[in-house]
Amino acid sequence: MQRYQLLTQNEIERIHENSLRIMENVGILLMHGPARDILAKAGARVDGEMVYFPKALVEKSLKNVPPSFTFHALDPEKSVEITTETTAFVGPYGAPNVVDLDKGRRPSTLEDFINIVKICDTLNNVDIQSHISCEPNDIDVDIRHNVMVHNTLKYSDKPLMGTCYGYEYSRQSIEMAAIAFGEGMDTIKRKPVIASIPCTLTPLGYDDKMAGCIMAYAEYGQPQLVNSLSMAGMTTPVTLVGLVSLQNAEVLAGIVLAQCVNPGCPIVYSASGSNADMSSAMLAIGTPEDALVSLMNGQLAKYYNIPCRISGALSDSKMMDSQAAYESAITLMMAQMAGGNFILHSVGIIDTYNSVSFEKLVIDNEIIGYVKRIGRGVVVNDDTLAYDVIKEVGPQNEFLTHEHTYNHFRTEFYRPTLSNRDVFDNWRAKGSLPIEKVANAKWKSILAEFDKTVLSPETDADLKKYVEGHRLNAKG
Amino acid sequence: MQRYQLLTQNEIERIHENSLRIMENVGILLMHGPARDILAKAGARVDGEMVYFPKALVEKSLKNVPPSFTFHALDPEKSVEITTETTAFVGPYGAPNVVDLDKGRRPSTLEDFINIVKICDTLNNVDIQSHISCEPNDIDVDIRHNVMVHNTLKYSDKPLMGTCYGYEYSRQSIEMAAIAFGEGMDTIKRKPVIASIPCTLTPLGYDDKMAGCIMAYAEYGQPQLVNSLSMAGMTTPVTLVGLVSLQNAEVLAGIVLAQCVNPGCPIVYSASGSNADMSSAMLAIGTPEDALVSLMNGQLAKYYNIPCRISGALSDSKMMDSQAAYESAITLMMAQMAGGNFILHSVGIIDTYNSVSFEKLVIDNEIIGYVKRIGRGVVVNDDTLAYDVIKEVGPQNEFLTHEHTYNHFRTEFYRPTLSNRDVFDNWRAKGSLPIEKVANAKWKSILAEFDKTVLSPETDADLKKYVEGHRLNAKG
Repeated sequence: MQRYQLLTQNEIERIHENSLRIMENVGILLMHGPARDILAKAGARVDGEMVYFPKALVEKSLKNVPPSFTFHALDPEKSVEITTETTAFVGPYGAPNVVDLDKGRRPSTLEDFINIVKICDTLNNVDIQSHISCEPNDIDVDIRHNVMVHNTLKYSDKPLMGTCYGYEYSRQSIEMAAIAFGEGMDTIKRKPVIASIPCTLTPLGYDDKMAGCIMAYAEYGQPQLVNSLSMAGMTTPVTLVGLVSLQNAEVLAGIVLAQCVNPGCPIVYSASGSNADMSSAMLAIGTPEDALVSLMNGQLAKYYNIPCRISGALSDSKMMDSQAAYESAITLMMAQMAGGNFILHSVGIIDTYNSVSFEKLVIDNEIIGYVKRIGRGVVVNDDTLAYDVIKEVGPQNEFLTHEHTYNHFRTEFYRPTLSNRDVFDNWRAKGSLPIEKVANAKWKSILAEFDKTVLSPETDADLKKYVEGHRLNAKG
Repeated sequence: MQRYQLLTQNEIERIHENSLRIMENVGILLMHGPARDILAKAGARVDGEMVYFPKALVEKSLKNVPPSFTFHALDPEKSVEITTETTAFVGPYGAPNVVDLDKGRRPSTLEDFINIVKICDTLNNVDIQSHISCEPNDIDVDIRHNVMVHNTLKYSDKPLMGTCYGYEYSRQSIEMAAIAFGEGMDTIKRKPVIASIPCTLTPLGYDDKMAGCIMAYAEYGQPQLVNSLSMAGMTTPVTLVGLVSLQNAEVLAGIVLAQCVNPGCPIVYSASGSNADMSSAMLAIGTPEDALVSLMNGQLAKYYNIPCRISGALSDSKMMDSQAAYESAITLMMAQMAGGNFILHSVGIIDTYNSVSFEKLVIDNEIIGYVKRIGRGVVVNDDTLAYDVIKEVGPQNEFLTHEHTYNHFRTEFYRPTLSNRDVFDNWRAKGSLPIEKVANAKWKSILAEFDKTVLSPETDADLKKYVEGHRLNAKG
C-alpha cells in the first residue's frame, strides 16, 4: 500500500538523531532496579534511577527486532500477520465508561466489557481484541485483569491483548492465554498469542509496573506495543517534531530493554501523541495534530523496519455525533496513510478516551471499510483500462448491462454495512433514521444473535479456577 | 504540500494513452456546429456530430493551458491564486433543496440562496463563492442565472462562479461581473473574475449548452472548470481506471475546444467520478471509490501541469448525521491529498447532491480547518526539534510554562471553530449539545450578524437593471 510521506528521509534522520541525543545525554528515569541492572550490563550508563543509552546499544537492539510475526488466534483462520506492510484493526482500550443512545453515559461493568468483546468478535473489520475494552468497574481490582483475559478468551476467537500492569500480572495474562491455547509456558515462548501495551511515564520515564510488563512479555516472547502517549505543550515540547523526538526516545528505551531481556522478541513500535487544548490545558484527541504525529510515528517505525501501532478512531466529542464521526474518519484515514500495522482504538473510543460508545463501535467499523477500500487502491491493466469496452459501448450509451460491469462490481465497489444510500423518499418512508439510530439497532441485534462458544467447558473451568486462585494485591 | 501517490508514473501514462486512444478512435459527440467547425479547422476529424482528436492536437492544446492564474475578488485581499500547488475551497453547487434542523428539507428559494452566499462569505475556510449554491426555485428560470450572479456579487466580495448554461447566458454572467468590477468586456478578457463549470454529457459527449459555455468563457478569458461527472458501472466502465480514462478523454476534449477558441485561456481540470450503488443503480457519492477517483484525477492534472478541481465534502446521507460527517471528512481529506486546487462542494452538500444542509455548511468549514492543518505539515529545524528545551525541562517535568510553548502554540495548534473539547461535566452543564445543534445556532448567528454592503447603490441598481433587461428564453 502507498503511504503518505509527511517527512523527507533527511527529516526522519534528524528526528532519529535528536532522540538518540536525548537518550544518551538527557536520559530516561527507570523506576525498576532489575531493569536498570540488565541495561547496565548491556552497556547503558546508570546513575541512580536514571539510565543513559549509548547510540551503539540502541542501534544493536533495533536490529534484533523482528520485522514481522504471526499473532495467533484461537481460531487459526483468524490469526493475523503483523508486518510492516499489513494493517490490523484492534478494539478500544482503557475507557472507564460506556455510553449508548438508550442509557447515556455510565461507569462500565463486566457486562459492558463482555458485550464489547462480543461486538468486536462479530464486526467484520475488527481483527484483534483489545484488553481493557472498557473497565469492568464492578469487578474487584485484584482479579480484574484476569477476569478480562478470561472473558475475552471465552467470547472471542480473535487474537487478544493482556494486561501491562507489572511483571506478575503480565505473566498471569500470558499463562491464561497458554491455558486457552493448550500450550505450556515453555512452548508459548515461540508462539505469540497475547499482546500488551506497556506505556511510558512521559516525559522520559517508566514506572516499575510498565518496566515489569516489558520484562515479562519479552521473557515469554509475547508481542508488546512499547508505547508513549504524549501531549504537546504539556508533557512534551509544543512543537510536534519535538514531541515525536521525545516520545521516540522513550519508545526506543523500552525496545532496548525488551531486546536486552530476550533478543528477537516481537515488538510493535507504539506511540500516540496529541496536543493540549490550550484553553483548558487538557488533552485533546482526534485533532489534526494527532494525525500529523501519527504520520511521523509511522515513518519512524518504517525507518526502523518495525511494525507500528497507530491510534485509530479518536474523538473528543462526548457523544456519537458528527464531530465524533469526522474526527474518527480523519484519524482512521491518517492511521492507514501513516502505514499503521496495528491500529489500536479502531472502534468505539469517544470523549477523549473516557468512554466507549456502543453505536460508535459499529459506525467506526463502517468507516474502516471505507478506509480499507481506499487503501486497496486500483489495478491498472488492459482489463481495467477497458478500452475495448468503451469502444463497444460508445458515446451516449450505458455500461450497466455490459458483462465487464457484472464481472467486476463486487470487487471494485465497497459494499456498505451501515451507510444509507436510499433515495430520499425511501429513507423517509423507512422512518427518516439518522445513522446513529441504525447503529443502535445493529449492535443490539449483534448481541441478540451472539451464541458462540469458544472454549471447551473444561478449559473455561480451568481459567475460572485460575482467576480465583490468583488474587494478587492490585498494587503488586 | 505533500500528496498521496496512488498511481505510479507509468500507470498515469497508461491512463493518458488510453484516453488519447479513446479521443482519436472512439471520438466525442459534440452537439454544437460552430464548436465542431473550430475543431475541424484545428485538425480534428469531424464526421456528422462526432469529433475525433489527433494526439498532436491534444498535446499542443495542453501546452497552451496556463499553470496558474489570479482569480480576482471584489475585495482584492480575497483574490485567490489558482495554481497547481495551492488549495482553494469553494461553496456547494447545484442542489435543488435545502435542509436544516428546524424546517427539514424543502425546495430552495432565493432567500435560501442569499443565506448560503452570506454564510459562505463569512466562513473563514471558504475562499470562493459557487454559482448555484442552491436552486432559487421561486425565481423565473428566464432570469434565474442572472439573479444568482447579481446576489452573489451583492452579498459577497469573494471570487465567484457564473452560469454554464449556453453561450449567451454565459456571456451575460461575465458581463455582470464586468459591471461589478467596473471593467469593460475588452479589459475583462485579461482579468479572471468569474468561473464556470461546463459539464460533459457522459459518456463521451457535450451538448450545445455546455459547448457554448466553453466557447464564451474561453473567448472572454474567464476560468472554466471543464468537467466530467461520471458514474462507474453506469455511464463509464465499472473499473475506476476505466472511468478515469473515459472522463479524462471527455475533459481533454473540452480543454482542446477552449484552447482552440482562445489559446492560453485559464482552465481548471475538473472531474468527479463515483460509483453506482448496484442495488439501486443510483449514483452514490462520498464513497471510497469517489475518493480513489479524486486521487487519480489529481495525479492526471499534475501530469498535465494544470490546476485541478476535486470535489470536497460529499455524502449520500439525507441529514447532517455521522454518515454525512465521515463521508465528508474522508472526501475532503482525499481532495487535499489528491492535490486538489479548486475544491468544489467544500461545504454543505448532502443527499447525493440533492440538498444543501445549513448545519453542514459550518460543520464542513470546521473539517476544512482540520484538513488544512494536516496539509500544512510540520517544520523540522533546531527550534522545532527542541533538544535544548527537552534537556532543560528533563524527565517528569512539564512543558506548559516554558517560553517555547508560549511562542509556538498559536501556530502549531489548530484552534477549533466548532468542535467541543470540554470535559464531560462542562459539556453536560452547557446542555449536552450534539455538534449539529451547535452548528444550527452558529449559522443563525452568522445570518443575524451579517450586515455587509459590497456594491455601491449605483452598481447594485445597474445590475438589477441588467437582470430585468436580459430576460432570455431559458432554452437558450
